This record gives sequence, structure tokens and C-alpha cells, in this order.
Amino acid sequence: MSRQHGVESGEDRLIARYFEPLAKHPGAFALVDDAAAIVPPAGCDLVLKADGIVGGVHFFPDDPPDTIARKALRVNLSDLAAKGAKPLGFLLTLALPKELGDAWLAPFARGLGDDADVFGCPLFGGDTVRTPGPVSVSIAVFGAVPHGTMVRRAGAKPGDRVIVTGTIGDAALGLRLRRDASAARRWRLGRPEERRLETRYLVPEPRGAIADVLREYASAAMDVSDGLAGDLGKLCRASGVAADIEIASIPLSDAARLAVANEPEQIETIMTGGDDFEILACVPADNVDALCRRAAAADVAVTEIGTVAAGEGQTRFRDRQGNMLVFARPSFSHF
Amino acid sequence: MSRQHGVESGEDRLIARYFEPLAKHPGAFALVDDAAAIVPPAGCDLVLKADGIVGGVHFFPDDPPDTIARKALRVNLSDLAAKGAKPLGFLLTLALPKELGDAWLAPFARGLGDDADVFGCPLFGGDTVRTPGPVSVSIAVFGAVPHGTMVRRAGAKPGDRVIVTGTIGDAALGLRLRRDASAARRWRLGRPEERRLETRYLVPEPRGAIADVLREYASAAMDVSDGLAGDLGKLCRASGVAADIEIASIPLSDAARLAVANEPEQIETIMTGGDDFEILACVPADNVDALCRRAAAADVAVTEIGTVAAGEGQTRFRDRQGNMLVFARPSFSHF
Repeated sequence: MSRQHGVESGEDRLIARYFEPLAKHPGAFALVDDAAAIVPPAGCDLVLKADGIVGGVHFFPDDPPDTIARKALRVNLSDLAAKGAKPLGFLLTLALPKELGDAWLAPFARGLGDDADVFGCPLFGGDTVRTPGPVSVSIAVFGAVPHGTMVRRAGAKPGDRVIVTGTIGDAALGLRLRRDASAARRWRLGRPEERRLETRYLVPEPRGAIADVLREYASAAMDVSDGLAGDLGKLCRASGVAADIEIASIPLSDAARLAVANEPEQIETIMTGGDDFEILACVPADNVDALCRRAAAADVAVTEIGTVAAGEGQTRFRDRQGNMLVFARPSFSHF
Repeated sequence: MSRQHGVESGEDRLIARYFEPLAKHPGAFALVDDAAAIVPPAGCDLVLKADGIVGGVHFFPDDPPDTIARKALRVNLSDLAAKGAKPLGFLLTLALPKELGDAWLAPFARGLGDDADVFGCPLFGGDTVRTPGPVSVSIAVFGAVPHGTMVRRAGAKPGDRVIVTGTIGDAALGLRLRRDASAARRWRLGRPEERRLETRYLVPEPRGAIADVLREYASAAMDVSDGLAGDLGKLCRASGVAADIEIASIPLSDAARLAVANEPEQIETIMTGGDDFEILACVPADNVDALCRRAAAADVAVTEIGTVAAGEGQTRFRDRQGNMLVFARPSFSHF
């Protein structure tokens, strides 16, 4: 992505109008070059991640453009947070169908720019391409951690506590509400609860505020994107451990509690639906208090949900009566 | 993109089978984590670039999958070369329609892996997503230059010589051959010339071999992706200069010469069609000999095509008789 003074092509105009204002870092050269150049922070490793979202797959094509932009950036910032990394900036590839013009691009760029400011993650460059398919947003994000300190998936040890941030399942329930007009009535949700779940699906809340805390206190972490049940399994397999989880201790929003109270099988949606973008971490028992205190100070709620045990990737989810819940499809996958 | 031992989801299996073998850098953690971590080379700036290609727009959906992969990586490597940067690695977002399975993915991954090896640019991670649209490949590449030495578009000075690598126009003519079955006959191309042009469209040749040489001797550079005429205009506007080009000195392949000899209006395709992925650079007159010698030693042909003058972005293309050629649409744009 690059734009020119004395623009001529449609792409140049589009970039100058909508994306140049987001390229506030001097190394982005106001998008008037072919590439960006940045000085990496001294003593740091770079943390690299790319994640794409596709209309009709990861969001509804008629979602507000600003929320599509925010989601695209935030799913990547969520990964950086879980790895303990501070954002440096991002590259954007936007594949745009012909029918989306200024009325779509203006709020898209505004949402992206607002979040770039809020999360201190400027646009470094990228590419705008035509597509005969749905709008797709691919973002590559760059972050930094002090050398050798990226929080890994591998690293959990027997005896560690399992914690999650925020509440689990809201986004998956919000998606269900979008697809099933009668669900809100069945779950006896008021309009505010309904809105809350839908918003959680539209715009995740990356937990960058505790990136430093995770580096200091966690033995392993990842963000929950494909469902807590499946993602915990991934973390356990990467670490070569097992985990015992008490389902009753999993933090649920009031709206999610109502949904489960009125339709108990929604616990499966909550545990496996994905799109949470909360952080799942394992923490040595001696570190839990300090981590919770520091997270609270950063205004991030943290809840202990279980314990790491010796094993080879097993995850056991038990209800109050000690019965084990088994999920038909623990991890969401489009494939 | 991440994969797991004891894989379960379709995406995990796909990544383990096709992409984990490409993640040879230890910082990619064999794709068993959410992000990669790399130690940036000491004393270097990072050079960042993302470029996407879309089926039906930047390539034909039935192009061989290995050439699609190569093109996606090479268009990014071409930018790094023009900026004087050495590749460090890349992130991939692959948007895959349902109908493309193993028979497509196997050669795609093979092509990508071969080029990653050849160009010393390993896969650091990414994302594989479903799309109801055409296959799309978005790559974010990062490279390194000694601090402060990225070759800019801005930097050309009056008196500099304008040079290009390789030959110009082959890819655009190759694309025309794909779309117009009678063109090869009109241009009197033999089968080998036809093949050569088509191959140049399918698989560009990034000029990383002269990245160091450009840093040392060029005042400005960019790769030619949207047509020589328009891209030279961009460079001139960024540098605040004008340029005078002798069309007769623009290096053409034998196939391109045949095309122009038999259909003179093809000079417009050559000058404005794009997809060349050659390097356009401005070089102080005293540096030209040294640059040409060093480029020849690196097996990259370099041709002087004109001169930089004082101005504000003007580009003047003259034929042997001194007549100025004006192009209807100097720069290719999908927008």
C-alpha cells in the first residue's frame, strides 16, 4: 500500500483518503513508499502474527463496517496480549468487492483508526485489492517482548492453576442470537442482555492491559478463539499436561447465565463456540494471588477455573456433582 | 496459524500436513503456538510489506497452484529487493474455497516451500480461513536493512540516471496472450517466445541479488508492479523530480520485440501493463558504472533508460525521432 501526492489511480486516491491518516508512525512514510521501516526496540524479540476474517464466515457482510475493522485488528491484538507482547504496528490487506464504496470505507477506516489509537498500534502499510468474493480483511501484527520472554502455549506444569479473563461464551451466544430469532425469547433475555451478547460477538476486547502481568506470572497462555474446551486441549497438548476444570467456576455474564438457566444445553455453545478472545493461562499456584491483584489493578477480571495435572493433553470438565461433561465438538473449525 | 500434536480440527490437520514443513525457523515454533518470536538482527531496521493476490484478479483461478504460491511470495520479495532489504521471513493468510482440497494444497505448499528455501525467507505463521469467494493469498513479508539505509522512493536528484533490471513488458504481454488466443499469431511468436511471456506473468523474478548494490549506489528505487510509465511517475512525484526516458533504450525481450514489431501499439501494454517486478532505480551518474558491474556480477542485467531532471513528477517518454509518447492510462489499477 502506498499513496502519492498528485494521486492518479483509484487505489491511490482510496489510500490517500482513508488509510494515510492511520499511518502515524514516521516509519510508515505516510504510505508514500513501497514498504515501512521501523527500528526494533532494543533488547526485544519481535512477536509476529497474522489473522484474517472473511465476510460470511467470520462476520456478517452487513455488520457495521467499523466493527468489522475493529474485529480484524482486535483478534490479532488478542494474540499479542496472550503472548505478553506490546503492539508495535500492523499491515493490512483489504480485499474489497466492487459494491463497497465510500459509504463502507469511511466508517471502516474510522473504526480501524480509532482502535489503532486506543491500542497504540499504528498502520505500517499494506495492500488494497479488488475481489469478486466477499470483503476480507487480513492483518499482520507486530509486537515486542523483552528477549526470550514470549509467553508460550508450552510451559504449563502440573499443579499450576488455570485462569481465564473476563467472561466466557458471550460471543458464541451472540452469534447464536444473530442466527436464531427465537433464542432471545427462549433464553428470557431482556434487550440489554441481548445487545451485550451481540456486541461481544461484533467487537472483542483484547486484554493487552495484562500482557506484562502474564509475562511475569504465567507459565503458559493463549487467547480463546476457537472455544475454551478445544483451546485448553491445545494448550495442554503443547505443554504435555492434563487439566481438570470445574464448569461451575467458569465466569459467565448475567446474560450467559440466563441463557443456560433457560436452555441448559447452551453450556456447549459457551464452552466450544469460540470468538471469546479472552485469555486462558496457566499460573504456578504461588503466583495466582499476585497475578489476580495486578490484573485487577489493570481492570481485567481474572477467574480461577481449575488445575493442571500430569498427563498428555487430556481435559476433564466436571459439573457440581462431579459428572464429567464431554463435548461433541470441543473446538470450532471452519475446516 | 498454529498446529497441534494430536491434531483434531480440519484446519490443524491442514496446517500440520502442508505448512509446518515450511516453518523451519526456530522462532516459528513449528506452528505449535499462537505467534512467532524472532530476534531482530542487531543494528538493523525492519522493512515491512504486505501484498495480496486474488483469484480472478491477480491470477487465473486455474493457474498451477505452485505458481500462485510463488507469485504471492515473490511480489513481496520484489518489494524487499527494491528497498535494499534482506528477507527474514513471512506470514501467510490463505483464504481457501471449499472446492480446493489436497490436490490443490499439496502443490501450493510445495511451490511456497521451494521459494521460501531459494530466497531464504521462512514461514513464520499465519492463518488459513474458509472463503465463499475465490482463493486469495495475502503475504506479509519482513526484511532487514542496516539502520537508516532503506532505499526510498524519495531521493532521486536531477542528473541521476534512470535504470531498470531485466526486461520490461513481458508479463503484461503474457497476460494479453492468456486473454487473446489470436495474439500469438498476430505477433508471430514461436511457441518458445509465447511460453516465455506466459511464464513471466505466472512467476516473477525478484531481484534480491542486487539489494545490497541498490543500498550502496541508488538514490531511489521501487519495483515495477503497475507499469513502468506509472511507477516512474510515482517515484518522480515522491522525489520531487522529473524524468526523461528514451523508449528505444528500454530493455525488451526477443518476444516483446517481436510483439511490438508486428503490432506497434503493444508498446503501450509494455509500458503500462504492470506485473514486471523488475527494479526501477535512480543512480547518481558517478555510481552507474559501479552499480552495473556489481549487478552483472550478481547475474542481474541492468539497463540505463534515461535521466532525472528538475521538475515535479513529470515523466517524458520519447521515441527515436524525439516524439513524445503519451499513455492513455499510465498506471495499472484495479480501482
